[in-house]
Amino acid sequence: MANLLDGIESPADLKGLSLDQLTVVAQEIRDLLIQTTAHTGGHLGPNLGIVELTLAWHYVFDSPKDRLLMDVSHQCYVHKILTGRRARFHTLRQLDGLNGFMLRTESPHDHFGAGHAGTALSAALGMAVGRDRRGGTEHITALCGDAAFTCGVTYEAMNNAADVTKRLIVVLNDNEWSIDKNVGAIAHYLNKIVTNETYSHLHAQAARFLERIGGRTALKLAHKVEESLKGLVAFPSTLFEELGFTYYGPLDGHDIPNLVQTFRFLKEQDHPVLLHALTKKGKGFDLAIEKAKKYHGIAPGTFDPVELKEIESKPGVPTYSQVFADTLVKLADMDGRVSAITGAMPNGTGLDRFRPKHPDKYYDVGIAEEHAVIFAAGLATQGLKPFCAIYSTFMQRAYDAIIHDVALQHLPVVFCMDRAGLSPDDGPTHHGLFDIAYLRCVPNLVHMQPKDEDEFADMLYTALLHDGPICVRYPRGAARGVKMKDVPRRLEIGKAELIREGSQVALWGLGNMLPMALEVADALEKDGVSCAVINPRFIKPLDEGLLMECARWARLIVTFEDHVVRGGFGSAALEVLSNRGATVPLVRIGWPDEFVEHGHLAALRAKHGLTTEAALVKIRAALSQEGKARA
Amino acid sequence: MANLLDGIESPADLKGLSLDQLTVVAQEIRDLLIQTTAHTGGHLGPNLGIVELTLAWHYVFDSPKDRLLMDVSHQCYVHKILTGRRARFHTLRQLDGLNGFMLRTESPHDHFGAGHAGTALSAALGMAVGRDRRGGTEHITALCGDAAFTCGVTYEAMNNAADVTKRLIVVLNDNEWSIDKNVGAIAHYLNKIVTNETYSHLHAQAARFLERIGGRTALKLAHKVEESLKGLVAFPSTLFEELGFTYYGPLDGHDIPNLVQTFRFLKEQDHPVLLHALTKKGKGFDLAIEKAKKYHGIAPGTFDPVELKEIESKPGVPTYSQVFADTLVKLADMDGRVSAITGAMPNGTGLDRFRPKHPDKYYDVGIAEEHAVIFAAGLATQGLKPFCAIYSTFMQRAYDAIIHDVALQHLPVVFCMDRAGLSPDDGPTHHGLFDIAYLRCVPNLVHMQPKDEDEFADMLYTALLHDGPICVRYPRGAARGVKMKDVPRRLEIGKAELIREGSQVALWGLGNMLPMALEVADALEKDGVSCAVINPRFIKPLDEGLLMECARWARLIVTFEDHVVRGGFGSAALEVLSNRGATVPLVRIGWPDEFVEHGHLAALRAKHGLTTEAALVKIRAALSQEGKARA
Repeated sequence: MANLLDGIESPADLKGLSLDQLTVVAQEIRDLLIQTTAHTGGHLGPNLGIVELTLAWHYVFDSPKDRLLMDVSHQCYVHKILTGRRARFHTLRQLDGLNGFMLRTESPHDHFGAGHAGTALSAALGMAVGRDRRGGTEHITALCGDAAFTCGVTYEAMNNAADVTKRLIVVLNDNEWSIDKNVGAIAHYLNKIVTNETYSHLHAQAARFLERIGGRTALKLAHKVEESLKGLVAFPSTLFEELGFTYYGPLDGHDIPNLVQTFRFLKEQDHPVLLHALTKKGKGFDLAIEKAKKYHGIAPGTFDPVELKEIESKPGVPTYSQVFADTLVKLADMDGRVSAITGAMPNGTGLDRFRPKHPDKYYDVGIAEEHAVIFAAGLATQGLKPFCAIYSTFMQRAYDAIIHDVALQHLPVVFCMDRAGLSPDDGPTHHGLFDIAYLRCVPNLVHMQPKDEDEFADMLYTALLHDGPICVRYPRGAARGVKMKDVPRRLEIGKAELIREGSQVALWGLGNMLPMALEVADALEKDGVSCAVINPRFIKPLDEGLLMECARWARLIVTFEDHVVRGGFGSAALEVLSNRGATVPLVRIGWPDEFVEHGHLAALRAKHGLTTEAALVKIRAALSQEGKARA
Repeated sequence: MANLLDGIESPADLKGLSLDQLTVVAQEIRDLLIQTTAHTGGHLGPNLGIVELTLAWHYVFDSPKDRLLMDVSHQCYVHKILTGRRARFHTLRQLDGLNGFMLRTESPHDHFGAGHAGTALSAALGMAVGRDRRGGTEHITALCGDAAFTCGVTYEAMNNAADVTKRLIVVLNDNEWSIDKNVGAIAHYLNKIVTNETYSHLHAQAARFLERIGGRTALKLAHKVEESLKGLVAFPSTLFEELGFTYYGPLDGHDIPNLVQTFRFLKEQDHPVLLHALTKKGKGFDLAIEKAKKYHGIAPGTFDPVELKEIESKPGVPTYSQVFADTLVKLADMDGRVSAITGAMPNGTGLDRFRPKHPDKYYDVGIAEEHAVIFAAGLATQGLKPFCAIYSTFMQRAYDAIIHDVALQHLPVVFCMDRAGLSPDDGPTHHGLFDIAYLRCVPNLVHMQPKDEDEFADMLYTALLHDGPICVRYPRGAARGVKMKDVPRRLEIGKAELIREGSQVALWGLGNMLPMALEVADALEKDGVSCAVINPRFIKPLDEGLLMECARWARLIVTFEDHVVRGGFGSAALEVLSNRGATVPLVRIGWPDEFVEHGHLAALRAKHGLTTEAALVKIRAALSQEGKARA
């Protein structure tokens, strides 16, 4: 049987299909999503949940003239498949392949890139104003998950919307109503709407009404029946209404005919509208529904694409996230002050392992990094010890709170920055490559990075005992697999560890870059160059004593960091050497001053010169330059 | 007649006073506020507006056991006067005197410092949870202005509140209802409540009811009559109610007896409550009411404290903010793409001069820096040229948006960072001392700082023509007073300006530090040391060519910046020298790695070594060290 999807090279190809055919296309897309992500990994659950919404949108609207923005945009796969990227879909998340998020440089249909939550409404509003200023007629839609409504910036944009435009469509893709795991007042509020009996009755009526009047007729009648339709469809949702949006819904987000009619209706509205659509994460794939959390984002090889059964994973080296959570459980057993905070990432941060052990010390505040940090500051004023577990890239959201609320007041908050360094397959929106630079200038902060999981536990323990703000950055994925002590040990703040003695070159390998420093040392030793290897442990305060000792004997100092070199750890070393009047040359190995794309770690390291071989080339060049400086 | 206020050394001294006596104290406080700020300057209007609210709070609650947090906290003067700091109030905003904001190190009554908006509710929530965990009984109140409700983080905290505590008091100090200048849906919403006729009637009833039942009786009856009282007092405010807060109000925020009774009632509630109080900025001082914007924050000597008349200010050198706005008007006249964005600071940024000229290109988005920047990114995708005018310190709020939404997508947004460098009298919450460090690591960004207002206009024009994200930082206050060209000139990106030729020392004086570099040059020339002086113009990309030229001939390079030295402009220079293998010593003049306190500019510069004399000491020491390096 011919595959309908094969004929869809652009959204225009959808227009000739019947609603029944769209339903067939939906099934074909689901198959493609499942088959592809079995190999590539990716955000399977969210994309299975949004097939009909995306299809109906592209059926009614006219992309790229009309614009679809997606919040976070990990749910963009269906959109990519429908907008000329079906044939390349198997390259998802690979170097030079499709990015897992919307990317402006990838397609004219990707109007606004995203990877962090809460930005779509704000960006869409800017676009709407741009359109209005040039008198454009195109439609702009921001599709936001319910979690985006725990983000402050979504609210800031809603507050601003009605002041600046009359035409903006927001789709609230509410896929948590059955799982009931979203937190906060807004989640309760949405749940109340969904479970409201009066609504259910009215909604059924409205659906029948729309069915009766049919597609094209509905379109023609739309502006005439607006008021009555609104009376039928709309729940008296003052929360959104008071914020200037006319609310429609809730609506079954998998009912293509109903979605098509509703989008046609919304196109005609001359005021900001919000459509509340209910969808099911993982729809059409039992595994993804049963294990909704796990199948939100999966690694390659999670399930068998033929049998559709889970592939049993071998117990391996624990991830840093797991070590973080397990250590925090221990610390909380010992010390009643411990508190764990996550911004809607219990799974990603590992804190879902902490929660059942210490439910009274666990706080999921929603996707609200800024509040998370200020809330932590508040806890700290009461003698508690908050551990804020936020990815390095998302900590950028809380930058002002770190400075203004925590560091300035010298409050003992612990920042646990997961995914520091490259987050390879996700790409530039998710790399944690800036935290050293943006934190190094902040007074009062201590900043650490461990060489392995045992030292990581020591650092968490050290943080618990430290009376002031303290940060620890650690990479994504598996730890080193070293044996961990039963009881962690307190580290001396600002003391580095000399791993290997040497007499000519000093290699400072920060955290997960220490193995490269050791490999470089081995290679240079073969050249007859004696190398010391140092595990810095502390980015700030840097061990100035040991660095200056190296400066006295070394022909060359080399720093290695999983971070951009601008303003990074190596830059801190340069500052110390300069302050102390040392003139030993220093080579800095790290990421370049550009946004690093997505792909596998090894491929990206090779491309950008973060391999042992590339480091050796730079180091040998520097050694051969000795005495030639000041040309 | 004895002054009642003189007897108030702590809030405990208020408790014995009658309500009538509190009214007298209120008047005495107003006199003190007016008399003091005439000399010291400060936030007069907001404090005049909050006299009764603060008095009533301290009358009912028991500070420091009970905790009063103030959002932004520029309205803390009355609180400071009542909590043992009356005698020192004349030292307001002076070095070693009282800070103009809440400061934890200043008093046990200052529970949480603030200077940026929107943090109080979040911090109060953390405190409430801390109290609950140790079984405390104290009351925690967050007093927030209506503008705080345009901040996303306030909403993030509200969304989280009911999940984590049952006891939290929020006071919404609504002082914009009569001025009607706040923006956004929430402002419309509050205005609707205030002007609602049904409410007015109910409110009058409620007031009479409270009057009838009297203070102590009301207290005893409170929990019994809660429901009926609520029915009388509360507007059916679903917006706050849906967010988990029981709403009470609106209430006259200058009616002491009513406030006292209401606070007593709120103390007894076992759920998060929000009291909506209406106050008048500047109350009791005609000048401050007539010119509410101007008297929000005043400079010393704005008015005569005896005559209570405004002192005419001499027309002086324009401020950088004025130059910014006037230049932007010109650019908008020339180029229809220009758009100006402010986060509720039309006055502070100078954009109130732009607004009447180009109302269709002006956007005040509320205190919502993150939305401001993402909104700008949205505009930029539509071919517009947004100029985002946000103080350097507040830009920290938008850090993630700068990286994730603007720089990553290489969108042509212009960041106009006013108050970069020290914001002396305001103190550590307001200094713009980190923006070089936090922006230097971000790929794709251009970052500039002008030496004077004429070059500033050139930079704004250069930004208009630049196809990518670009930042310009400029200091608070008066520009240099140089003559400005009629038509600005496009600067070559990354090219520094050689101001003075020299042969031994190269002095790179960034922006407002160039005069110091010139003074240093004069002094060194007298020592017989020939100095070149460079105006860098571009922090990024730094003029590597000119820097390396200096490295070839100079015995010493010196950088001057109004920024912390860690990760700053001098650090950028160190990186270039290291990358190129240059070994010329470099001395960096800038702010130390600590939070700089408040005070006058000259005093702070003297204290922290940012004077010509202190720079000369360091430079001469470095020159005398030549050849002694690598000890």
